[in-house]
Amino acid sequence: MQGYETWAVIMAGGSGTRFWPASRKQHPKQFLRVAGSKTLIQETAARLGDLIPPERRLVVTGHEHVALVRKQLPKIPPENVLAEPTGRNTAPCIAWAAVEIARRSPNSVQVVLPSDSVIRPAAAFQKLVRVAIEEAANSNALVTFGVQPTFAATGYGYIEIGDELAMRGKTPVHAVQRFVEKPDRARAEVFLATGKYLWNSGMFVWTTNAILAALREHAPAVLTALEGCRTSAEAIAIYPAIPSIAIDVAVMEKARDVRVVPFGISWSDVGAWPALVDVLPADGDGNVNGGGAQLLAVDALRNVVHAPKGEIVALVGVSDLVVVRAGKAILVCPKDRAQDVKQIVDRLSREDPSWL
Amino acid sequence: MQGYETWAVIMAGGSGTRFWPASRKQHPKQFLRVAGSKTLIQETAARLGDLIPPERRLVVTGHEHVALVRKQLPKIPPENVLAEPTGRNTAPCIAWAAVEIARRSPNSVQVVLPSDSVIRPAAAFQKLVRVAIEEAANSNALVTFGVQPTFAATGYGYIEIGDELAMRGKTPVHAVQRFVEKPDRARAEVFLATGKYLWNSGMFVWTTNAILAALREHAPAVLTALEGCRTSAEAIAIYPAIPSIAIDVAVMEKARDVRVVPFGISWSDVGAWPALVDVLPADGDGNVNGGGAQLLAVDALRNVVHAPKGEIVALVGVSDLVVVRAGKAILVCPKDRAQDVKQIVDRLSREDPSWL
Repeated sequence: MQGYETWAVIMAGGSGTRFWPASRKQHPKQFLRVAGSKTLIQETAARLGDLIPPERRLVVTGHEHVALVRKQLPKIPPENVLAEPTGRNTAPCIAWAAVEIARRSPNSVQVVLPSDSVIRPAAAFQKLVRVAIEEAANSNALVTFGVQPTFAATGYGYIEIGDELAMRGKTPVHAVQRFVEKPDRARAEVFLATGKYLWNSGMFVWTTNAILAALREHAPAVLTALEGCRTSAEAIAIYPAIPSIAIDVAVMEKARDVRVVPFGISWSDVGAWPALVDVLPADGDGNVNGGGAQLLAVDALRNVVHAPKGEIVALVGVSDLVVVRAGKAILVCPKDRAQDVKQIVDRLSREDPSWL
Repeated sequence: MQGYETWAVIMAGGSGTRFWPASRKQHPKQFLRVAGSKTLIQETAARLGDLIPPERRLVVTGHEHVALVRKQLPKIPPENVLAEPTGRNTAPCIAWAAVEIARRSPNSVQVVLPSDSVIRPAAAFQKLVRVAIEEAANSNALVTFGVQPTFAATGYGYIEIGDELAMRGKTPVHAVQRFVEKPDRARAEVFLATGKYLWNSGMFVWTTNAILAALREHAPAVLTALEGCRTSAEAIAIYPAIPSIAIDVAVMEKARDVRVVPFGISWSDVGAWPALVDVLPADGDGNVNGGGAQLLAVDALRNVVHAPKGEIVALVGVSDLVVVRAGKAILVCPKDRAQDVKQIVDRLSREDPSWL
């Protein structure tokens, strides 16, 4: 790659509440084993394989989760874990990582990944990342991945694809026509029908120079605040003044040369409990059992179960439910109400925050 | 009461599986707090109030549950706990208690009660028991209580009432026309419509002489085997040879003079999880929460929840479910499938009996 050193940035700042009661403030989703024997962040790291060695992986996380990162990813050097004193969305996270990588390796390409997606198989993922790295290194464009939609999702942003700019192996690279915010159902149906729209995956590949230049042009307040930041301790003073803004809004929607690599392999952002259906094998009745507990199902169809090893969950005559046990809490709700777990979390935050 | 000493016999031999996972082989239903702060057997004992003192209460239970009885009913003298080496239904239990009471107090009346019903209020119960005691002492008949049906139950046996034989205070005493086994739905509807049928409550009042005479006439094999039985240790040798038979079949259906006191107060045999609705207060949405856990219900109606203190159960958008947590096991089933918990227990007894 023309002398470029390749780095990874794993964004682990999320504190999602949609996996309550398994996800807690002190233990958010990316640190949970919801999709198999590895936690989501461990699976994210493992997915990189030999593509990028641990000493060239940065993890950006909340300061309260540094210990979890160190424990779950012991091969990553301590100085590669950047602790945000407070969450400021993805733009500051990406800017800080870019500043840090520029200091250590000015002539580099970065692969920026959420820590809580599930993408399989790993070999196909690595092949697509290689394509994006080549594209970013050759063009100095900002490159993103767009997931081939499988249904008219209203929960994702979309990328409208433009001209095909290159073909790398069997993978095309397209110009990005525009980014689109989460659509309503009708627009999502149109997007799906045209075949010209991809889901915005939140994964990016770019040279360190390209992202720094784009930040300087489109989000100077974010970049200049972080340019002087050399340690997590320094970040404590800097972060409160930084605007909270997503990289899509701050940079991607404004940058001139943005390219997209279509992502045709299995991808899930594991947005809520029902998503386990997409990332775990089901039994003959469509029940999915994460977390290690024994599942005993009688006349029970298409349920999603998550409970600790050594426990047993018996379901009789129930269908399409989410049943979760974690840390002295039980959640039961229909799969199509799983978004409303937020209501539980909201009530607990008012009435009994010790459960969060 | 013409010099009669009044005794109570609390039958605590049940090993019901319908309250799994809270009920286990080592901890059956009567020892559970499913209907409030007392266990069912504690509530049964407390219900007797001052009517019969603890030293005149016998408890007949399985040998493996003697320690539980001693712990939950510490005021009952140890020699009043009769340990059955194996369950043989109610006739042997009643015969042994009769033999034991005859030895200690030949001129006595016995109040024989299951240990796992819920009857409220206690004062009204005591009034009805006093009526039955007077009737039994005066007539030397076998007296039973028949519960006023509130719906066309198919899960109970019925008692057809005959002539009114006496009026004690405001309570009539009727002859029993006949005992009827559990009917199908159509017959149950007829029974309800006639107003001539009561539910068989399994509670009895009789003089010790009357029940011994009836056993000698109708179930001599049961009585003679137990006449020599003076201790729980001796029962170990005797019990295996005793026929397993219910007192209804062995004696009540055959005896000549059987009388019934109609029981118009709140009664439940707490047959399965949905019965908690009858014995516990509901919240404004009809949800019933036993067991001490915190319940957080959002758009959740008429559910039955039972989980330990210190835990939380969050229900979102579910109705008419049973949700139970006990001893590392969770059960979720619709209330109208609660009888099928037996299928879970059957499968576990084959595949993994450690859960029973």
